[in-house]
Amino acid sequence: MGSLTDIGVSAGLNILSAVGFLLAFAVLRIQPINDRVYFPKWYLKGTRSSPRQLGNVFLKFVNADFSTYIRFLNWMPAALKMPEPELIEHAGLDSAVYVRIYLLGLKIFVPIALLAFAVLVPVNWTSGTLENEKGLSYDQIDKLSISNLGKGSKRFWAHIAMSYVFTFWTFFVLYHEYKVVTTMRLRFLANQNRRPDQYTVLVRNVPPDPDESVSEHVEHFFAVNHRDHYLSHQTGLWGLWGQRVDAIEYYQKEIEDLCKQEDEERQKVVNDPNYIMPAAFVSFKTQWGAAVCAQTQQTSNPTVWLTEWAPEPRDVFWANLAIPFVELSVRRLIVAVAFFFLTFFFMIPIAIVQSLANLDDIVKVLPFLKPIIERNSLKSVIQGFLPGIILKIFLILLPTILMAMSKIEGHTSLSGLDRKTATKYYIFLFVNVFLGSVITGTAFQQLDNFIHQSANKIPEVVGESIPMKAAFFMTYIMVDGWSGIAAEVLRLKALVIFHIKNAFLVRTEHDREQAMDPGSLDFYNCEPRLQLYFLLGLVYAVVTPMLLPFIIVFFSLAYLVFRHQIINVYTQHYESGAQFWPDVHMRLIIALIVSQILLLGLLSTQEAEKSTVALLPLPVLSIWFHYVCKGRFEPAFVKFPLQDAMVKDTLERAHDPTLNLREYLKGAYVHPVFQKNDIYKVIAVDEEEKNPMVVTKRQSRMNAPAGS
Amino acid sequence: MGSLTDIGVSAGLNILSAVGFLLAFAVLRIQPINDRVYFPKWYLKGTRSSPRQLGNVFLKFVNADFSTYIRFLNWMPAALKMPEPELIEHAGLDSAVYVRIYLLGLKIFVPIALLAFAVLVPVNWTSGTLENEKGLSYDQIDKLSISNLGKGSKRFWAHIAMSYVFTFWTFFVLYHEYKVVTTMRLRFLANQNRRPDQYTVLVRNVPPDPDESVSEHVEHFFAVNHRDHYLSHQTGLWGLWGQRVDAIEYYQKEIEDLCKQEDEERQKVVNDPNYIMPAAFVSFKTQWGAAVCAQTQQTSNPTVWLTEWAPEPRDVFWANLAIPFVELSVRRLIVAVAFFFLTFFFMIPIAIVQSLANLDDIVKVLPFLKPIIERNSLKSVIQGFLPGIILKIFLILLPTILMAMSKIEGHTSLSGLDRKTATKYYIFLFVNVFLGSVITGTAFQQLDNFIHQSANKIPEVVGESIPMKAAFFMTYIMVDGWSGIAAEVLRLKALVIFHIKNAFLVRTEHDREQAMDPGSLDFYNCEPRLQLYFLLGLVYAVVTPMLLPFIIVFFSLAYLVFRHQIINVYTQHYESGAQFWPDVHMRLIIALIVSQILLLGLLSTQEAEKSTVALLPLPVLSIWFHYVCKGRFEPAFVKFPLQDAMVKDTLERAHDPTLNLREYLKGAYVHPVFQKNDIYKVIAVDEEEKNPMVVTKRQSRMNAPAGS
Repeated sequence: MGSLTDIGVSAGLNILSAVGFLLAFAVLRIQPINDRVYFPKWYLKGTRSSPRQLGNVFLKFVNADFSTYIRFLNWMPAALKMPEPELIEHAGLDSAVYVRIYLLGLKIFVPIALLAFAVLVPVNWTSGTLENEKGLSYDQIDKLSISNLGKGSKRFWAHIAMSYVFTFWTFFVLYHEYKVVTTMRLRFLANQNRRPDQYTVLVRNVPPDPDESVSEHVEHFFAVNHRDHYLSHQTGLWGLWGQRVDAIEYYQKEIEDLCKQEDEERQKVVNDPNYIMPAAFVSFKTQWGAAVCAQTQQTSNPTVWLTEWAPEPRDVFWANLAIPFVELSVRRLIVAVAFFFLTFFFMIPIAIVQSLANLDDIVKVLPFLKPIIERNSLKSVIQGFLPGIILKIFLILLPTILMAMSKIEGHTSLSGLDRKTATKYYIFLFVNVFLGSVITGTAFQQLDNFIHQSANKIPEVVGESIPMKAAFFMTYIMVDGWSGIAAEVLRLKALVIFHIKNAFLVRTEHDREQAMDPGSLDFYNCEPRLQLYFLLGLVYAVVTPMLLPFIIVFFSLAYLVFRHQIINVYTQHYESGAQFWPDVHMRLIIALIVSQILLLGLLSTQEAEKSTVALLPLPVLSIWFHYVCKGRFEPAFVKFPLQDAMVKDTLERAHDPTLNLREYLKGAYVHPVFQKNDIYKVIAVDEEEKNPMVVTKRQSRMNAPAGS
Repeated sequence: MGSLTDIGVSAGLNILSAVGFLLAFAVLRIQPINDRVYFPKWYLKGTRSSPRQLGNVFLKFVNADFSTYIRFLNWMPAALKMPEPELIEHAGLDSAVYVRIYLLGLKIFVPIALLAFAVLVPVNWTSGTLENEKGLSYDQIDKLSISNLGKGSKRFWAHIAMSYVFTFWTFFVLYHEYKVVTTMRLRFLANQNRRPDQYTVLVRNVPPDPDESVSEHVEHFFAVNHRDHYLSHQTGLWGLWGQRVDAIEYYQKEIEDLCKQEDEERQKVVNDPNYIMPAAFVSFKTQWGAAVCAQTQQTSNPTVWLTEWAPEPRDVFWANLAIPFVELSVRRLIVAVAFFFLTFFFMIPIAIVQSLANLDDIVKVLPFLKPIIERNSLKSVIQGFLPGIILKIFLILLPTILMAMSKIEGHTSLSGLDRKTATKYYIFLFVNVFLGSVITGTAFQQLDNFIHQSANKIPEVVGESIPMKAAFFMTYIMVDGWSGIAAEVLRLKALVIFHIKNAFLVRTEHDREQAMDPGSLDFYNCEPRLQLYFLLGLVYAVVTPMLLPFIIVFFSLAYLVFRHQIINVYTQHYESGAQFWPDVHMRLIIALIVSQILLLGLLSTQEAEKSTVALLPLPVLSIWFHYVCKGRFEPAFVKFPLQDAMVKDTLERAHDPTLNLREYLKGAYVHPVFQKNDIYKVIAVDEEEKNPMVVTKRQSRMNAPAGS
């Protein structure tokens, strides 16, 4: 374990860099020129317009009001000020619940830390085993950790008792949080305005019929089997069409020509039955009817006429709507095998690429680099860094690779893809970051070790090295956690890109809006990494309580920053109504069980057999707790209760008895390519983004509206 | 491994005893006096009346028609003759599908055995490793098994290839069988006459309401939330009532008095709201309405208003209808823990009882036994057998104990109890009979070994001793399988009890009908034991193909016997429509995976690493196959498709447009105690059965009708 001084130095450096980022943010955000980088959400909502429109030229770019500099930390209380109901309305339930995860971290770890410092730290400190053993180099941190207890010490009972207390406290907080989130979700669903997906069910695997088109078949089936409730349907279309329009040229006229061609093509696709895929969005007269259809089995063959709640229109992942049952199961098998190999053997291709990435070979392929690389000093530097860079690139690409895997698995909504990818990423991080750091070695070596070790040896080996890795993880939390979060709020990349675009490309207000990159909370990328902190906190709560303050600082900072970001920056691509919570909850339970098993393993190496047995009920209780919560709360995230549907239907009828639902739902579920409105503009701008160096000469920049 | 001669002798003895049983059966069954023992089902159906009514006294008891003795094996083709649709109508789908499991055994193992004898036996036989190694004692059977191959032999590839062939063949048969059973189930459900459970949903955990009784609350809830479909409901009643009537005395008058008292009590219970439990059977106007309600979530709190398809009225397990959600999950936790201890530590209480069951102690408690026990020769014999007898008694009681555990778990139907108990029993048999026989030692010692061994060592240890245990399992199959099945058809216990009852108790035809004990297919007892043969067959198919013929004989004999029994003897207590098939299928997959892992373990000890790797995809494929089958077929056993419900509703309306469904369903779901019809008679007879030595003097025996 590293010395206290090492940790102190590391902490100092990281605090410095974090504070640096925060200061930079505090100054940059109040400059008018950066307004669109730090408040894009308000622009997109249309409630904020460029401060650059007013005042003199200098003030357009730089904030000269020095009083604001004094209040530069204002953003922190401001981020906390918005009450939760308003936050839900402003940023959506997904985001509001997401930031609650950080708050949950505080709720779990602050009391645990207080208790651990009040009980376990004194117990460890006064034990004095390390002091008495001569010739052993130890440090002050070790004296505070479980390492200071001698083998077979009676004091382990304190740790066992605390382990129970911590577990029950975590149960309590988790149960309460699940309950709150469930209530929030149900209230959110109940309070929502009328939305197409409330009346609509996604039907997949419509079986082929020799006499009828897909559309006719769907209509007949539901008109018969949901006689009193069926309203209308929209069939999906293949995401393919003949001639891809990929070169809209510089001139308005040509654009118009091509758009016409594309339009014809689109018409052809709509009318050609071969492009119709065997999936449909079926709408019902009442939410009750839709709730019934989504939750029931339609025919005796459960692989056709599959029904589920339709995702929000913008949440639909169109490419996966029409995968047949057998193909789907083959795809899942392939992805499962591929994911296994990725997790345990990813070092092999990395190593191969690293060995190939020899500078001499690169020079052969790209001879013009020769003069630069040939300089000896530079060469050795690059040669030294290259392997690390290749690994880093892989790790940055990893979430994208996992997302591609999830897409192959065939999930039909973006939110589903996010959740499945998060699960994969969590497993990867658990194996390669957590276990990989505790027992040094690649995942494959671990796997090999594990299958050659006895079942009770594995937790012993991992558990035994846990206390020794505390210093490493403290540094990890500071580098990845503290500085990472501080960098998040600064948005350096978005800042730079916005100013480059602004300087070279932006001609109209619309261009400027496109240049803003508000980003979004990428659940599949953020949540698994944040789960790692829960895991570390729970594992070290009993072993080395000194780690807890680091975790608490992380959660506080992250809560503040992400609350600020979802208020001012991020826009979400979809709203799933916090459907990810069961996953979050389950991963927390996994972290809890891992922590219990590792403590068991650690204690069993300390000649404290009796106390080890006393810990055995904990994992059993945790698994049981998981099932209780699952039974109690999970259905609210999967099904939609009929009573609630009935209430909403009744209210709907009372409020708007003349509503023409068929008209309202018409066109709600149409592939984005076929949505008419704004289509020319979108294509033009998309093209512009793809070829950013081509200056467009469209008239629009002249006569664009001044305000956004 | 035992010698060929040992096996031969054992086989001879077992064949002799099996043939003896079968001969005894063939002779006994054609004696008129035994007619009610061997054909009770036909009596209960009312299609057969006592042959004793006709002819002279001698012929009433003994069959003197010697021509029938010549055709004494007639029952075998007769058992096979009834075509399956008729069998389903006669014995129910549960029984018809149950005997298909034996047929499935033949379908799987006959081709596998042919292939194994054609390919693997020659490969093993010609290998000659055992012959070449001096000083090694071996036997002919070993020469036919995998043991004859030397370490690192190339011939292992033949076994690996066969393992793939056997696996894919099993996949094919299992998939096909699952498909057939699913079709049978759906056709059965579609062809059934109108039944109350088709229109009825069981609602549990009705939340308390301060202003309304349970009954009113149920009515209001469903009248609102299933407005167009709700018809009526019956609320359950506590299975308790004030004064238990447990001593109906000898005199008719007294019986009548008590019956009146009981009747009043019954009335009181029905009218007292405190006895109403928060569960109800809710009926709908259409099957479509019931199907919808059974498959959907009713309110936002998923622990109240739980709905599921109502079991058949006779399948309801009344005692468990009203267990609150939290209590239910606590019960499940307790049972899970208790079952774990029962499986791994059952030897501890047995050993304690065995040590307590000392003859001297018994004599102290029961001094009148002293003269018998004191004889020395007898004493030592008893002392020697006592521990074995205690273990045997425990094993006989085991299914009952497991059934009690399942009842505590709170399942609401008898069929559900049967299925859950079968799962527990299978696990127990797998751990204690299969693993316990392979690696000698108690389950606890195994558990201890396993957690101290590395993950890849366990299959090695088990796999390595598999070939050595082939002879043991051959004997096991002959003793437990062959003779057991032959004893099943003889029904010795039922025969003896019937004749005792007949001689001392039976006064009326009704008494005689009560004395018949047709028995039933106890799924929870039979199926797990039969699964053991699938496990043995699959494990030894590659390792020691010599075992397969024993398995095939077992399956043929069992198929014949059980088909005969379900036609002539057993009556079922309920009809679940083969709902047990997903469990049967899953246990077969487990057996397949176990066989693959053990082969992997065995080969990895034979210095054939490469070939071991070649086996790794098999378990992955098997798990995948399981999920494919589950997705494809399982819903048909859990849900009821809306399309089918709609078809049945339409037919129903066409056939019987004037049906008063409310009248039809009235009283369908009433606790058996409150069913009026026949209640006096049933109680009297029950009492008689409980106190069989008390001769009743009821008039009825005089004026009972002559025919049944």
